Amino acid sequence: MSRLDSAIKRLQAQRSCIDDVARRIAGLPGPVLELGLGNGRTYDHLRERLPGREIYVFERRVAAHPDCIPPDDKLILGDVQETLPAALTRFRGQVALVHADVGTGDVETNRVLAAAISAVIGDFLAPGGYLVCDQQITFPGAEAVPLPDGVAPGRYIYLRKPESA
Amino acid sequence: MSRLDSAIKRLQAQRSCIDDVARRIAGLPGPVLELGLGNGRTYDHLRERLPGREIYVFERRVAAHPDCIPPDDKLILGDVQETLPAALTRFRGQVALVHADVGTGDVETNRVLAAAISAVIGDFLAPGGYLVCDQQITFPGAEAVPLPDGVAPGRYIYLRKPESA
Repeated sequence: MSRLDSAIKRLQAQRSCIDDVARRIAGLPGPVLELGLGNGRTYDHLRERLPGREIYVFERRVAAHPDCIPPDDKLILGDVQETLPAALTRFRGQVALVHADVGTGDVETNRVLAAAISAVIGDFLAPGGYLVCDQQITFPGAEAVPLPDGVAPGRYIYLRKPESA
Repeated sequence: MSRLDSAIKRLQAQRSCIDDVARRIAGLPGPVLELGLGNGRTYDHLRERLPGREIYVFERRVAAHPDCIPPDDKLILGDVQETLPAALTRFRGQVALVHADVGTGDVETNRVLAAAISAVIGDFLAPGGYLVCDQQITFPGAEAVPLPDGVAPGRYIYLRKPESA
C-alpha cells in the first residue's frame, strides 16, 4: 500500500466515522468539541454534517484554510494540555461529541498528548456522548462503538459514554 | 461537498489516473518525470505501480516524508522553470510519462508555472508518451485521453503525445 493509498484510507475512515457519529447524535443535544483544527478539513465536514450545532475548536495556532476558521467565540487558542482542563467547568457533562485529530509525526508527543486528553475528556461528555479520534485516547467507563464498514480496526478510536455514567 | 469530501475526491482522482496510465505505459520504455515531490505520496505510488522504472523528480526544496525521498541521482533540485528547460537535452523524446502535481494555493502562480511547463513538456515525451497533471498544462499536438471512471471532468489533465508526432 502506497502512501497515497494510505492517505485515501485515512481520510475515508475520518469521513465514515464522522458521518456515522453525526447520525448517532442527531437526538442528543450539546456542543461538539474539535481538538486540533489543522487545515480545517474535518471542521468543515463536521459543520456540514451538523448544521446548527455549536462546534468549539481547540487549536494551538490557526493555520487552516481561510474558509475553515471558526468564529472567534468558538475558537479556544493555546496548548490543549492547558486549555482543555481549563474549559472543563464550562462544558462538564454537556458535550455530545468530541472529535480529536491531534496526531503528529512523533510517537512520543502523541502518547503524552493522548494521556493528557484521556485524563479529562470523559468528564466533558454528556451521558450517551461520543469520542471519535485518531489517537489512543480513552476515558473511564468508555464503551467501544463498532467502527463503520470499511474502517480498519485500530485506524480510528470510537467510544461512547454510557447513559448511566 | 466539504473540504474533506473534496480532498478524498482529489486523491482518488490522482490514484485512478496514475493507475490507468501505469497500465498504458507498460509496453512503452523510457523514464518517468515527477514534477513536484511535495510530501512524496504520489512519488511513492508511482514507484509502487511502476517497479523498475526510472523516476526522476523535479523539486524546489525537498520536504517529503523520509521514506519518499528519491535517490540523489534521480532528484533534480531547483526552480522547475529553470531546471526543466535545462534537462531537455538529456531527456528529449524519451519520456514515457510526466506526472505533475505542482498546484499551489495561488491562481496566478499556477498559471505562470503551467505556461512555463507547457512551453517545453511536449518535447520531453516519447511518441505515445503521457502527461498526467493537476494544472492546465498542455503541449502542441496533445491528444486528450478519456479520464478513468469516477474522475470528474476538469479535475485532472490527461494527455497523450501521438505516435506520429
